[in-house]
Amino acid sequence: MSSCCGQGLHLDPAVREDARRRLRSIRGHVEGILKMLEDEQVYCVDALKQVKAVQGALDKVGGLVLKSHLQNHVATAAQRGDAGDLVEELLEVLKYR
Amino acid sequence: MSSCCGQGLHLDPAVREDARRRLRSIRGHVEGILKMLEDEQVYCVDALKQVKAVQGALDKVGGLVLKSHLQNHVATAAQRGDAGDLVEELLEVLKYR
Amino acid sequence: MSSCCGQGLHLDPAVREDARRRLRSIRGHVEGILKMLEDEQVYCVDALKQVKAVQGALDKVGGLVLKSHLQNHVATAAQRGDAGDLVEELLEVLKYR
Amino acid sequence: MSSCCGQGLHLDPAVREDARRRLRSIRGHVEGILKMLEDEQVYCVDALKQVKAVQGALDKVGGLVLKSHLQNHVATAAQRGDAGDLVEELLEVLKYR
Repeated sequence: MSSCCGQGLHLDPAVREDARRRLRSIRGHVEGILKMLEDEQVYCVDALKQVKAVQGALDKVGGLVLKSHLQNHVATAAQRGDAGDLVEELLEVLKYR
Repeated sequence: MSSCCGQGLHLDPAVREDARRRLRSIRGHVEGILKMLEDEQVYCVDALKQVKAVQGALDKVGGLVLKSHLQNHVATAAQRGDAGDLVEELLEVLKYR
Repeated sequence: MSSCCGQGLHLDPAVREDARRRLRSIRGHVEGILKMLEDEQVYCVDALKQVKAVQGALDKVGGLVLKSHLQNHVATAAQRGDAGDLVEELLEVLKYR
Repeated sequence: MSSCCGQGLHLDPAVREDARRRLRSIRGHVEGILKMLEDEQVYCVDALKQVKAVQGALDKVGGLVLKSHLQNHVATAAQRGDAGDLVEELLEVLKYR
C-alpha cells in the first residue's frame, strides 16, 4: 500500500491503540453531526463548528502517528540507510491536503 | 446552541442532504481506518495518509456549508441588520482549529 | 486585476492603513530572517520558527482584510445583487494556497 | 535562541542560499503589496490574493528548510542520541501557527 518505504516499519502498538480509541470517538462525533443534520432547523455555523471539531480531533490522531513515525522510523533512518525515501514520503504526506 | 446568531437561519435543505451523504461516506472511511489499525503491521505513513484523506473530505463538507452560509445568510445580513454579529461569528469559526 | 467583481468596492481606509503598518513590520521581519541566514551556523529550526512567525503575521493581515470585505461587501451583496460572484470569488481565495 | 537542541547542527549551505534567494523575492513581493495598498481604490480580494501568494512562497521556504532538517538532523538523531528532543522541538514548530 505504501509507495516506497515502510517495509518492516510498523506503527508502535501503544500509539496504534491510542489512535483507535480516538478514532472510535471521532466516529461517534461524525454520527452526532449526521443526527444534527436531520434537523431542518439546523444552523450552518453550528454544523461548521462540529466539522471543525472533528478535524481538530483528527489533527490530534495525525500528530500522534507523526510523532511515533519521526521517533521510531525517521530518527533511525540514517542507521538503516533509507533517509532519502522516508523524508520524501513524509513531506509528501504532510502537504497532502 | 449557537452563541449569538442564527435565529431563524437554517442550512439549505439540498446542502444539508449533500453534507449528510458525504458524512456517511466519511463515517465509512473512519471505519476503514479503524480496521486498518487492527493490523499490527500497519505502517505509520499509510495510516497518516488515510487520516489526511478524511480531513480532505471534511474540508469539502465544511466548504459546502460555508458557501451556503455566505450566500444565504451573510450576503443578506445587511438587509436583516445582523452583519456585525454574523461576521464575528464566522471569523471565529474559520480560525477554529 | 480582480477577475469578476469588486468594481467600485474598495478596501476600508482604516483597514488599509492598519494592513500597511503591519506589512511594513512584516517586511522588517523578512529582513531579519535574511540577516539570520547570513550566519553559517544558523540552526534550521530557528529559521523555521521565524518563517512561521511571519506567516502568523500575514494571517493577521489577511484576517483584517477578510473581515472588512465580509462586513462591507459580502454582507451587502444581496442589496447590490452580486452575491453569487462575490461568494465564489471569496471561496476561491480562501482555499488559495 | 533555540530552546533545546541544535548545538552544532547547521542549516545546509545550499539550502541556506536558496532560502535567502527566495526571501529576497518575498521581500519584494511584500513591497509590492505595500505599494498596492497606497491606492485608495484597491479591492479587498486583490489584496487578499497577494497576501496568500506570499504565504505560499513562505510555505516553500519552510518546506525547504524542513526537508533539510529532516534529512541532515532528524534522520541522524538516533546516531547522535538526541531524537527525543529533536522530535518534540519539530512537532512544536510544525503546529506553531
